Amino acid sequence: MVDGESAPEGAGAQARPPRRGTVFDYDRTVALSDGVFAIALTLLVLNIPQPGADGDLWSELADLLPDLGAYALSFVVIGGMWRYHHIFFRELARIDARLTSLNLLYLGFIALIPFPTGLLADRGDEAPAVIVYAITLAAVTSLGATMELYAERRGLAAPRQRRFFEYANVPGVFLLSIPIALLSPTLAIWSWLLLFVTGRVSQRMEAARR
Amino acid sequence: MVDGESAPEGAGAQARPPRRGTVFDYDRTVALSDGVFAIALTLLVLNIPQPGADGDLWSELADLLPDLGAYALSFVVIGGMWRYHHIFFRELARIDARLTSLNLLYLGFIALIPFPTGLLADRGDEAPAVIVYAITLAAVTSLGATMELYAERRGLAAPRQRRFFEYANVPGVFLLSIPIALLSPTLAIWSWLLLFVTGRVSQRMEAARR
Amino acid sequence: MVDGESAPEGAGAQARPPRRGTVFDYDRTVALSDGVFAIALTLLVLNIPQPGADGDLWSELADLLPDLGAYALSFVVIGGMWRYHHIFFRELARIDARLTSLNLLYLGFIALIPFPTGLLADRGDEAPAVIVYAITLAAVTSLGATMELYAERRGLAAPRQRRFFEYANVPGVFLLSIPIALLSPTLAIWSWLLLFVTGRVSQRMEAARR
Amino acid sequence: MVDGESAPEGAGAQARPPRRGTVFDYDRTVALSDGVFAIALTLLVLNIPQPGADGDLWSELADLLPDLGAYALSFVVIGGMWRYHHIFFRELARIDARLTSLNLLYLGFIALIPFPTGLLADRGDEAPAVIVYAITLAAVTSLGATMELYAERRGLAAPRQRRFFEYANVPGVFLLSIPIALLSPTLAIWSWLLLFVTGRVSQRMEAARR
Repeated sequence: MVDGESAPEGAGAQARPPRRGTVFDYDRTVALSDGVFAIALTLLVLNIPQPGADGDLWSELADLLPDLGAYALSFVVIGGMWRYHHIFFRELARIDARLTSLNLLYLGFIALIPFPTGLLADRGDEAPAVIVYAITLAAVTSLGATMELYAERRGLAAPRQRRFFEYANVPGVFLLSIPIALLSPTLAIWSWLLLFVTGRVSQRMEAARR
Repeated sequence: MVDGESAPEGAGAQARPPRRGTVFDYDRTVALSDGVFAIALTLLVLNIPQPGADGDLWSELADLLPDLGAYALSFVVIGGMWRYHHIFFRELARIDARLTSLNLLYLGFIALIPFPTGLLADRGDEAPAVIVYAITLAAVTSLGATMELYAERRGLAAPRQRRFFEYANVPGVFLLSIPIALLSPTLAIWSWLLLFVTGRVSQRMEAARR
Repeated sequence: MVDGESAPEGAGAQARPPRRGTVFDYDRTVALSDGVFAIALTLLVLNIPQPGADGDLWSELADLLPDLGAYALSFVVIGGMWRYHHIFFRELARIDARLTSLNLLYLGFIALIPFPTGLLADRGDEAPAVIVYAITLAAVTSLGATMELYAERRGLAAPRQRRFFEYANVPGVFLLSIPIALLSPTLAIWSWLLLFVTGRVSQRMEAARR
Repeated sequence: MVDGESAPEGAGAQARPPRRGTVFDYDRTVALSDGVFAIALTLLVLNIPQPGADGDLWSELADLLPDLGAYALSFVVIGGMWRYHHIFFRELARIDARLTSLNLLYLGFIALIPFPTGLLADRGDEAPAVIVYAITLAAVTSLGATMELYAERRGLAAPRQRRFFEYANVPGVFLLSIPIALLSPTLAIWSWLLLFVTGRVSQRMEAARR
């Protein structure tokens, strides 16, 4: 991480033919990101424990319903993050060293998601599990917004003129669920459904600007 | 998942240069899908337990034959799904936001397959294990058919004029095996061999149209 | 697997623009293969158990030397298979449905390698572990040779006019080690070093033809 | 590994069209490398154990802080290696058989990192865990420098005229931490922060040459 920074992409890349330099940076960053997304999605299944060798299998499977629910939730969440990342990179004209670092940090939280997913499956009725999940998701979505703002400020992407609400609604819903979890962990989980409402508002704001 | 939908690919993509927009969406969707397929295929091996530190190794390996059988079955199944996905995407002219969602849901079931595979290896002589496997496969193959029908209806792919039987035979065989599993789980597993018969009929129907 | 075969690549591909059709098949097959190779390589590390929470750590690490040896062996083996696959695909002009099936079967054995690697690490002084490893490697290298012969016969690759020895030396060394393992498992493992000798002979034969 | 060497890329590649030959080697090597990096990054999460089914969850999560710290450290380290690999390959004009072997060996150490990471998380207050981590990282960064020097000597990359310090500072810091670990494992871990200092010096040297 340290040595890698010794070749500033911004400066040196200009003088080189396009296949090297920025396009290469862009393509490998997308390839690494897609790899991390695909593996994080697929590792979620390892959180679902196999039932033991005996006992009534239907009731053992019924005990796994929270695990399957957590699998489905995190698959939707990581899939949504991938889609967001995908749309963000599509708009990106080029990439610089700092955005690469931000993206690695972002992927670090994406790759962590199987851990809070397991917590939620096993102890989803306890506040700490729900809070750790919410913090992880608030962190990853805030980092996504930070990347977007950084890219626009540095001219790496055309400014989309999104309002504060459009950047803040997803991390906001997760942050809001933290105090709720202290009262009722179950209610905090349900509160994440607010994302469908804020997402729709966000879409209308986007549509209104076109 | 929510925020990502705020940029409808169908509409905005037209105005942009081709590398951004639709081609990019297409390429990253294929890359993510291939990643999930490759990882699901490779994670299957983690379902095969290592024998303990002592005991007769030949007889311990013999006890693992159901695990190796389940590995082989699911490798063939996921490999077959990949091939199907591959042929479907090859025919696809472009991709829209809803097809991306359907594809993520499809991949969610593909990535789940190691779990019912483990069930089948450990408890394959009990109805619930066979039924959960059959349901998972019926779901994934129905979703595949749904994606195909959706793509044809929206003009994303040229209509192939496939008959109902061609769409329905694979999920049909898996659904049919569910009541059989209640009578005899072993017979239900053998009934999946019907896929070779229905597959051949399906191929003939395809060939007859050319 | 069954339904996927209903669109014969050989026939239909001609009429379509090149990006669809054969090139697409080729690219996705390479992508899936590289994914399986990369994951099989990386899953090997999961076979190395973490030492317990107490006890002398140096001596616990010393106990892991067979695990590290098995890791190194299988990394070299899978890396070698990747290199072989890479050279084979580089020579390939196009791909057909049957070669895709052979390649999936080949990948099924590549993805299995972490299992016999674990056996070798835990029970490498017992004949069954060594024999299972040797059989797996004999199977995967025979399948590689089969793919090559198939591709040459069908005109998918230019004939390389390799002699029988060049196809057979790698599976041959592994097959030969099976009876040796019944006498001495350790000697059988050492006999795999013969691959360096046969490999060099094979290289000379190749060089002599140029 | 043995048989694969029978087609020397350097010689034969010249006569073939560019897509086969060197570009293909280059692209698949990058694809395999990105796969291994992405999976090694994502497997780190499996080192974080799930808390048991009961007990105070906050205090159980507090016990996992070393695991989260080790996760963060190794994510930064592997991310940094990826970035280094990325910059190195960007400068590379072509690839030969020996560089492919060096790169596979390099990836073998990258893929191993989850193991010493687990050691560090569980037993980070003991010298052997810190030493094994330092050795692994010294090995991987030395191999990186070796690849660079090899590529420059063989004319595969333009000589960057880097000084010894620029090649040696990262493995140097890790090697230096080994005797420190014998005195104090904790101090050895802190000594890795020296990388930020040596990295900055290295960057200035690079900048001074432009």
